Amino acid sequence: MSPLVFQFDFISPYAYVAWKRVHALAEKHGRGLVAVPVLFAAILDALGQKGPAEIPAKRVYTFKDAFRKAHRAGLPLVAPPSHPFNPLLGLRVATALADEPACQRLAIDALYDATWGTGEGIETPERVADALSRVGLQAALVSRANDPAVKGRLRQATADAIAGGSFGVPTLVCDGELFWGTDGLDFADAFLRGEDPLPKDLSLLERAPSATRKGAR
Amino acid sequence: MSPLVFQFDFISPYAYVAWKRVHALAEKHGRGLVAVPVLFAAILDALGQKGPAEIPAKRVYTFKDAFRKAHRAGLPLVAPPSHPFNPLLGLRVATALADEPACQRLAIDALYDATWGTGEGIETPERVADALSRVGLQAALVSRANDPAVKGRLRQATADAIAGGSFGVPTLVCDGELFWGTDGLDFADAFLRGEDPLPKDLSLLERAPSATRKGAR
Repeated sequence: MSPLVFQFDFISPYAYVAWKRVHALAEKHGRGLVAVPVLFAAILDALGQKGPAEIPAKRVYTFKDAFRKAHRAGLPLVAPPSHPFNPLLGLRVATALADEPACQRLAIDALYDATWGTGEGIETPERVADALSRVGLQAALVSRANDPAVKGRLRQATADAIAGGSFGVPTLVCDGELFWGTDGLDFADAFLRGEDPLPKDLSLLERAPSATRKGAR
Repeated sequence: MSPLVFQFDFISPYAYVAWKRVHALAEKHGRGLVAVPVLFAAILDALGQKGPAEIPAKRVYTFKDAFRKAHRAGLPLVAPPSHPFNPLLGLRVATALADEPACQRLAIDALYDATWGTGEGIETPERVADALSRVGLQAALVSRANDPAVKGRLRQATADAIAGGSFGVPTLVCDGELFWGTDGLDFADAFLRGEDPLPKDLSLLERAPSATRKGAR
């Protein structure tokens, strides 16, 4: 059976909550898990869309909602020193470890904990190195992360996610079906049990527009 | 105790699912419910944001996700004849009945059922009149809905929702606290029980940005 694919960015508190839950989901269904770092800002750029943190009212709500969802999952949530911050270094570290999944999982765990678990942040090379060292990983990873091949791999993974229909993070891809956000995990669970209620014939749901907003397209 | 305020637009399948659940929530907590029709397109205009149906990948996902959420709530979901459609007439009918809450609830129920329950739609005055007649309401409501005072009241309600921090539909306002979407209802339930886990001191969650996307603001 093919592994589940988890697309994430450290910028998203929802991706943090989902990351902490997704391993148990994969194990429950006897699936592997491939963690794929992607740059959420590039997804928003491609869609011409604002992120939740870029709309003042939604920004406030998003932090409250993420806190409630983290609490429901039994997780602490403390915002990092600044937000939005530039997550590229953390994403590149996770990308550099793509071919060493056990180390990659340790690194992602450590970087998520520093971002949203303790609120120390991962905005600087020093903070990233600190987070990695806490789980026994070398600070040398930080310079490895700046290799052009690593940067290219992250760009390609982001482009592939967009081409595959992703519009946000976290996105969990199960046998080609996308599940978005923390509540997507519950529907992914039903899907993996063979209990997705979605009709095979989607014509019930497919309709053409009859009204469009000015400038919306 | 003050009533809960439910802001909605017929365009949103999530608002349909929430509408069918929100009365039980209000009753459970001994609260009244005030239904406030608002124009989602005007909220998006004010925020400079695209709606889920305006991003091709998100559009497909949104219908699937809404179907799964409707199914979980024990509700049918069939898309209306076209989507997005112009919901103004339906919203104005619901606005015209704002001072007759029992009739208004019947009308909103009938219009939601026609939009998302059976998929017959409410895009034309004929369809709106058909939906209303099915619950014993007069077709005359359709012309009453076109009264300039009714149109103005809908515009004002939308402006008030935006000013109050709403950024989408459905939004449930409980004692000044906003809850968005269908999953917001579960958090509203905890809030109304006095079990909202959110810290009183939100400084844990409030942070300034340190990175912005080009053109994002």
